[in-house]
Amino acid sequence: MLHNRRQLLSLLLGSALLPISCAAQPSRHGHLVIIGGAEDRQQDRVILRRFLSLSGGKNARIKFITAASGFPDVSWASYQAVFADLGATDCELVPLLTRDDASNPEVIRQLAEADGIFMTGGDQNRLMECLWESPAAKAMHRAFHLKGACIAGTSAGAAVMSRQMLAQGSVKPNPEKDLVQMDIGLGFIANAIIDQHFSQRQRLSRLLSALAQRPDLLGVGIDEDTALVIERGQSIEVVGRGAVTLVDPRKMQSNFDLISSEEKLEMLGLQLHLLPAGHRYVVPSTLKNNKKQPTALWEALYLLAQTGPMRD
Amino acid sequence: MLHNRRQLLSLLLGSALLPISCAAQPSRHGHLVIIGGAEDRQQDRVILRRFLSLSGGKNARIKFITAASGFPDVSWASYQAVFADLGATDCELVPLLTRDDASNPEVIRQLAEADGIFMTGGDQNRLMECLWESPAAKAMHRAFHLKGACIAGTSAGAAVMSRQMLAQGSVKPNPEKDLVQMDIGLGFIANAIIDQHFSQRQRLSRLLSALAQRPDLLGVGIDEDTALVIERGQSIEVVGRGAVTLVDPRKMQSNFDLISSEEKLEMLGLQLHLLPAGHRYVVPSTLKNNKKQPTALWEALYLLAQTGPMRD
Repeated sequence: MLHNRRQLLSLLLGSALLPISCAAQPSRHGHLVIIGGAEDRQQDRVILRRFLSLSGGKNARIKFITAASGFPDVSWASYQAVFADLGATDCELVPLLTRDDASNPEVIRQLAEADGIFMTGGDQNRLMECLWESPAAKAMHRAFHLKGACIAGTSAGAAVMSRQMLAQGSVKPNPEKDLVQMDIGLGFIANAIIDQHFSQRQRLSRLLSALAQRPDLLGVGIDEDTALVIERGQSIEVVGRGAVTLVDPRKMQSNFDLISSEEKLEMLGLQLHLLPAGHRYVVPSTLKNNKKQPTALWEALYLLAQTGPMRD
Repeated sequence: MLHNRRQLLSLLLGSALLPISCAAQPSRHGHLVIIGGAEDRQQDRVILRRFLSLSGGKNARIKFITAASGFPDVSWASYQAVFADLGATDCELVPLLTRDDASNPEVIRQLAEADGIFMTGGDQNRLMECLWESPAAKAMHRAFHLKGACIAGTSAGAAVMSRQMLAQGSVKPNPEKDLVQMDIGLGFIANAIIDQHFSQRQRLSRLLSALAQRPDLLGVGIDEDTALVIERGQSIEVVGRGAVTLVDPRKMQSNFDLISSEEKLEMLGLQLHLLPAGHRYVVPSTLKNNKKQPTALWEALYLLAQTGPMRD
């Protein structure tokens, strides 16, 4: 299956566009670097360094997508300077700001050859207007699933990582039935909803509101200057300054289906895990191999690490 | 036992101080009204009305303790006006502002005869400096346990309800090993730590910090204009505008004992329950009688409703 997909990709894009050095890396698992926004770009820059490293190092082909931003030029200039300072030699802005751009063969070529793709912050809805089920999005999926490219996103770029995307939602003290609007994201994550700036913007009630709508999914709240690093099928790691808050509603009992939008949400029996930066969780391949972690956490980590299916 | 304690109380205080109408109410369970601060005093005043009702109605003997406040006169004037407006006919300020006052026989007499006792907000440490293991505190316990008096507290007055009291702790994005200082409260609640202004002041990380220290206790976060009403051994109810957030760490796995104060807390496998205003939970007398609620919630509610032992 993997082989067939790679063959298909070659047919679609032309084998010249898929250098042998990339296509011949079956042992590389794709990584996702999901950043809660406001990552350090001045000091140690541990998250951006990690992204560069997971993409293959200083000579990796790094592609930037700034379509989420209201000021894409400013955003690109900032990251261009930072990554140059980190020694990256091959950074390129993908000319992708409109939905038409997302079908441009040059855009697709750039994404297909990427070792790392970085989506900047801004508005996740603006970003998804460009990318939704587009050839560009499919090229990103192929780069991740077939080549093991590293896909990173900060803030809005993090929100789009999940298939069920938190599109909009104000912050109120308590969760509410209609507090958030969901939309479709890129689907690198299948079983979770991501929220960013999590502790800094007090978004627990917003995330709970989303989980009330979708109690089959995990809630993943990522703090600022903090990244959830997922090595597909292998491990979960938290990098940076803060924590990742994991809320598991799969055994929850709630009154969501029984109340009107004016009535108050009751949510009973959620599991909460606080995973601080510096901690890495190896995900055993089967439940039997779990020696260390509480079962409820292990199940959640396992789901997260599975990532989503390739969308092609 | 109950009978003996009542006899003892009569001996201690003189039978004339214990009117028959109060002493002869064996069917009344004591109530606790634990208010997250900033309760409505202008509009519907549902929480203060409920306190008055649980104390016995408009003619109940209501006693106010303002020792937590930096401006006790102002605090008393405010509640005096509100309760007069609610039709309460027998409200009295207890002259209790210092530790010496807490041994004053007049103070003890007033507390012993109370149908309801209301502790205003301010600083829980100031309040406990007066009350800690004092005759006044013991009189409050006797009123609650032997007479079924209703004990209410708002903000600082809520914090002191538990035996393990959250004395101090700043708000930071993530829980920390040394973020909070604990102290001894009045102990009407034995198995929980109370925090107030919970959602409004984003105190989840502060409550989690406390639970990391005491993973044997429940965390109870009460929103502003919201009260947790406990009918001893019978039921838990949430009254007002917000919600009560119940965090149960009893099955948590944390690194608290392994880290220095600079290192980051990991907390895995917490249970979270969001109980909104308007919901009441009857606590079955045994686990077998639990038909409706998730087991984890039921256990937590049962612990909460047990209240603490009489301190005498």
